[in-house]
Amino acid sequence: MSDHDIFELGDTALQSGLVYRQAKLAYKTYGQLNADKSNAIVYPTSYGAQHYDTEWMIGAGRALDPTKYFIIIPNMFGNGLSSSPSNTPPPYDRQRYPHFTLYDNIQCQHRLITERFGITRLKAVIGWSMGGQQAYHWGALFPAAVERIAVICGSAKTAPHNFVFLEGVKATLTADPAWQDGWFAEPPRRGLRAMGRVYAGWALSQAFYREEVWRTLGHPSLEDFLIAGWEGNFLRRDANNLLAMLWSWQRGDISANPLYGGDLAKALGAITARALIMPSATDLYFTVADNEAEMAHLRNAELRVIPSIWGHRAGNPLGNPEDEAFLERALRDLLDGPG
Amino acid sequence: MSDHDIFELGDTALQSGLVYRQAKLAYKTYGQLNADKSNAIVYPTSYGAQHYDTEWMIGAGRALDPTKYFIIIPNMFGNGLSSSPSNTPPPYDRQRYPHFTLYDNIQCQHRLITERFGITRLKAVIGWSMGGQQAYHWGALFPAAVERIAVICGSAKTAPHNFVFLEGVKATLTADPAWQDGWFAEPPRRGLRAMGRVYAGWALSQAFYREEVWRTLGHPSLEDFLIAGWEGNFLRRDANNLLAMLWSWQRGDISANPLYGGDLAKALGAITARALIMPSATDLYFTVADNEAEMAHLRNAELRVIPSIWGHRAGNPLGNPEDEAFLERALRDLLDGPG
Repeated sequence: MSDHDIFELGDTALQSGLVYRQAKLAYKTYGQLNADKSNAIVYPTSYGAQHYDTEWMIGAGRALDPTKYFIIIPNMFGNGLSSSPSNTPPPYDRQRYPHFTLYDNIQCQHRLITERFGITRLKAVIGWSMGGQQAYHWGALFPAAVERIAVICGSAKTAPHNFVFLEGVKATLTADPAWQDGWFAEPPRRGLRAMGRVYAGWALSQAFYREEVWRTLGHPSLEDFLIAGWEGNFLRRDANNLLAMLWSWQRGDISANPLYGGDLAKALGAITARALIMPSATDLYFTVADNEAEMAHLRNAELRVIPSIWGHRAGNPLGNPEDEAFLERALRDLLDGPG
Repeated sequence: MSDHDIFELGDTALQSGLVYRQAKLAYKTYGQLNADKSNAIVYPTSYGAQHYDTEWMIGAGRALDPTKYFIIIPNMFGNGLSSSPSNTPPPYDRQRYPHFTLYDNIQCQHRLITERFGITRLKAVIGWSMGGQQAYHWGALFPAAVERIAVICGSAKTAPHNFVFLEGVKATLTADPAWQDGWFAEPPRRGLRAMGRVYAGWALSQAFYREEVWRTLGHPSLEDFLIAGWEGNFLRRDANNLLAMLWSWQRGDISANPLYGGDLAKALGAITARALIMPSATDLYFTVADNEAEMAHLRNAELRVIPSIWGHRAGNPLGNPEDEAFLERALRDLLDGPG
């Protein structure tokens, strides 16, 4: 018994030139699609996450209200539910896993909404982090199919510093003894714990630690926060899957495709959806400055900075009522306003 | 033949309660001590560095001018020249290395200048990063012995976020297969390379990478910068020594001693030296905000922010003429001005 559905994509040609045989897109829906199919929202997943990790943002009376909207969470490739290193059969298993770009992800998500649900136009695509990057990709790749996008702590193209941060994460994970011949045959416990500690510094701000905000999450000490909050978060993931999603993240770029040929300004300018761009004031890798630079090329966008010391986590405000209220308000404004 | 001298400290009681037998402080001097012993400057080393790495800031016509000043570089314990894991004999070798705090370092440096050179008052203590933290310690631990301090990209107490960043670095290095029983019996090549990549994201700013400033250092690609500039920088270090210095860094705190009993405000208020506090505007771990908070308690200090996108490296501006000129000017102002 599974709580989600699988969309069988069949043999799927990827940007890499490889064909993923019998690709599977795992998704979960919330609420009902209305008669004219005008109330659908796509809410993609973030790095490492499955729909279990983000569905808490969906609820009656909330901005993502399943009594009003038909909400679809497509699980990103590599996250263990959709096609991923952990579930790919030979000969494309292990070191031969055929990687999915975010472009590939969105092509498959588009097939899901059109072929399975007959939806031609989405009310919105909303996402945080890599989910926000997917929202951006939706806006650029299928302008006619998206009325609104919300990019929360995300960017149209992974910034060079963000790339370097991820190089550090990748090198940390693969320093583990279990990394052999381009594959983890067993869980790299040292590497996953180390990844958690490296991530802890990046995902939250200097001020978050200065003010010991982790206490509000129930941790009596910093070390408890690092073990329970960070090591634990990565130890429960599949390390090969984490590397696959990292691969996609490092290559995130709405213009890296034949439509735009690497011209980011052109890709941003092609977005017709109403765009709500919401960086966190203290995000260390999806920075306000990167979003500000995008604004010059967007034609129908608002930059609304989340005034938070929660760093990147301001956009996934579990346990953080203030940022959650800010985000809810902003999403309501987007969904209730013009497309 | 060595280019530096060794000061034999003898058996040295440490804050930890352990005694380091026959501790050795390696140092190098530049210029001549004048007759009234009023021209001495201590210029401590930074994380991972030996005097070879920082002496380039000393030169005729420069702020640190050996034709005017008698400049002493004391090598930090753990850096491989002074007592360190790499040169400590049994039974205090390997996992039993007796760690030195920055307090311990400054006690020994004080013995060096008084016992070997008969200096009772220093013209200045100037340092970058952990060297800046040592300058701060000098000011608080021996107020009467220091006329001026310059703290460049340093802090009086290692900030909690800085601590977390170092937890990530430590976990990365010790994810390597060579980490066994609390010791590296052989160089952890994966871990050192990974440490370089993790560090690369922290030591420079988002804007540094966005603007590809690494090109000005002669690297034709980001990957070349990461390998030659970062992996190379750590591969040539002793990994056990790197962990020992990291231990000292994480515990850096001018008030963590019997004089101040953990009262940071009291320790800052005890500094009588003229203090020049120079954070970089874009430093990700020694932040402007942390230095700003210190200013409220310093009685004779100037905060002069380095307007740079070189992040932490703004304070060690090798290959960065603009920040170097800014720094030179500031150090001249300090040394030529009142104590």
